[in-house]
Amino acid sequence: MDSAPKVVGIVAEYDPFHLGHKKQVLKAKQSADYVVCIISCAFSQRGSAHMFSTHTRAHMALASGADLVLGLPYSFGCAQANRFAMGGVSALNSLGVVTHLCFGVEEELLPVLGSATDAIKSKEYDKLFVESLSGGVSSAKAHGIALSQLINSEDSNSLNAPNFILGLCYIKALQDIKSDIVPLPISRRGDYHKGNDISAPSASIIRKKLLTGDTDFLKTALPPESYGIAIKAYNEGYYHKPQALDYALIAKILSSNSEELTNTPEISEGLEYRIMDCALSANSRDTLISLIKTKRYPYTRIDRALSHILVGLNNENCPDKPNYVRLLGFRNSAAPLLSAISKDMPLISRPARNKDLMMKEDMFSEQLWQIGAGECPKRAYEEQVVII
Amino acid sequence: MDSAPKVVGIVAEYDPFHLGHKKQVLKAKQSADYVVCIISCAFSQRGSAHMFSTHTRAHMALASGADLVLGLPYSFGCAQANRFAMGGVSALNSLGVVTHLCFGVEEELLPVLGSATDAIKSKEYDKLFVESLSGGVSSAKAHGIALSQLINSEDSNSLNAPNFILGLCYIKALQDIKSDIVPLPISRRGDYHKGNDISAPSASIIRKKLLTGDTDFLKTALPPESYGIAIKAYNEGYYHKPQALDYALIAKILSSNSEELTNTPEISEGLEYRIMDCALSANSRDTLISLIKTKRYPYTRIDRALSHILVGLNNENCPDKPNYVRLLGFRNSAAPLLSAISKDMPLISRPARNKDLMMKEDMFSEQLWQIGAGECPKRAYEEQVVII
Repeated sequence: MDSAPKVVGIVAEYDPFHLGHKKQVLKAKQSADYVVCIISCAFSQRGSAHMFSTHTRAHMALASGADLVLGLPYSFGCAQANRFAMGGVSALNSLGVVTHLCFGVEEELLPVLGSATDAIKSKEYDKLFVESLSGGVSSAKAHGIALSQLINSEDSNSLNAPNFILGLCYIKALQDIKSDIVPLPISRRGDYHKGNDISAPSASIIRKKLLTGDTDFLKTALPPESYGIAIKAYNEGYYHKPQALDYALIAKILSSNSEELTNTPEISEGLEYRIMDCALSANSRDTLISLIKTKRYPYTRIDRALSHILVGLNNENCPDKPNYVRLLGFRNSAAPLLSAISKDMPLISRPARNKDLMMKEDMFSEQLWQIGAGECPKRAYEEQVVII
Repeated sequence: MDSAPKVVGIVAEYDPFHLGHKKQVLKAKQSADYVVCIISCAFSQRGSAHMFSTHTRAHMALASGADLVLGLPYSFGCAQANRFAMGGVSALNSLGVVTHLCFGVEEELLPVLGSATDAIKSKEYDKLFVESLSGGVSSAKAHGIALSQLINSEDSNSLNAPNFILGLCYIKALQDIKSDIVPLPISRRGDYHKGNDISAPSASIIRKKLLTGDTDFLKTALPPESYGIAIKAYNEGYYHKPQALDYALIAKILSSNSEELTNTPEISEGLEYRIMDCALSANSRDTLISLIKTKRYPYTRIDRALSHILVGLNNENCPDKPNYVRLLGFRNSAAPLLSAISKDMPLISRPARNKDLMMKEDMFSEQLWQIGAGECPKRAYEEQVVII
């Protein structure tokens, strides 16, 4: 390449990779040489384990156009919006090759993105955010509340739309780390996650349908090349069953003491006692969350906290920024991009051989994922880098 | 009562309480004022969780004639023959009221019980037993090998029959603690556990049949009054499902380090590494045991070791003799017996209120049992003493 290539980064989950995801990748590709996706691994940003495996999801993304797919370390992949965004953005920045960051923003909120971006730079915003958060709402809602007090929006209620908030978090993270990466917001339908648009259903609706055995629905909701990968995994039973680890979680909580729980991210201010107490009355993760949930402790915070307990994540193992990323897969044609990546950011493709790189939670969370798929834990170490 | 009553003790499991058990209780009652049974609690002597709950099993025994049913602490109830017998015998002895100990011995081995009893008193026996054990056979087999070298028996191969060995262990334990309790061996059919006698199938065959939904078989194999209790529990789904804790076990092993495992009873000499290694290739407890099993490490030792890992038992929490027993149930007519029991032996009926009595493993194993039955863990604290 004569000049530095244009490389667009995307932070995502792809569980599974659907038509909306493909649309975004193709849009990014229109003006880019390469598209690099960084995804959460065994456990999702919202908390519980992904349905499809880390490598299956990477494979789906590559098949539908991504050039390189990386994996976010567990403590960033399973984290509230701020940390998830900081993990993805700073990892992409550390690669030294990414020039743009593409993210979808609800169509109706695109007009206020500019003023919202200005707003989140202010100290007033930070103050309002922390105030809202300590009032006991979710991270996304706290962002929405802070924003609604600083900008004029005709639709202030929708300011806490998940993708809009994530977008703002990306922009804020880029600013915080003084990155040269250019934000590239693109329009997405606001009702996507609510599932009103049956021509492009959300990933959660696709998973729900698939768990009822509806493979026809899967076929219409995924790009054909991703569908082939997803249906193969599904037919082989190679997917995490939603309740598979419920008893393991409850047993783990019952055998933990309050000190261990207090030292777990997202658990503080007495939540540890509430979790231990509610575990006595729960025979499933769903029941447990519904028992713990209050205005002060929103669902996703609890969901993530429970995964952290199960995985054994503690506050000491949570660096501010990822110090490695996982190499999940790439297109052969992306070889020049791979070789241009900064050597300062380790790309780990064989985790078992890198025990010194704080990958304990990463690999244990992958083992847990495999157990919940009915597989032997060692399969977590056997997954090959996907090359197409 | 004018003179001290004759009280017969029985050490048992009753999972479920079947026709053979009733026969033994009735035989003991013929010459006794009271029959006191002491049973393993949530986990069986052989290792894995019982199918029927601790209190359901106590209820079955009471309904069919037992006067008082006690629970052995976990570290004795889930233990090799020597320790199981010592736990049961010394707990019964500590009550201060038990005069006789009744146990079944295979019919064909009754003639050699006398010489076997003499043999096990010798130092030579201890030496031969330890030698055999270190050669890598099960505890029962090691007893059988030691015996066969010291006594003449026409059927030396059957000297390691489980109930014969347990009987000898009871006698030895009585001697070791210098108890006045009189051994009362009674004849039982030798082929009982092999299930050849369909008129009195073994507990393991009954459980297997029941797990296939065969309730007719249950009806013919249990005394009517015990059947009513068992079928109620079964129909309510109140029984531990055999694979329910498999993932919890594998996750627990994967998150343990070798020090923790080495400090677990029945784990030593490198077994900890073998367990950790094999766990990577297992997606069930059965598979895991089959992978770990060698001539050196017999099935039941591994089965118990795995339960100890799950329950979190460590070597420090294993006293030589029980310092409490659980009060599971009694007949109203046994009130005089209850009040005559020595105050030196605490009878715990409400475990939650006795946190200082080393009951951690007892209650956690009960919670695990409840989880595996699909119940909330708190039910472990809610079970009432059965009074009939």
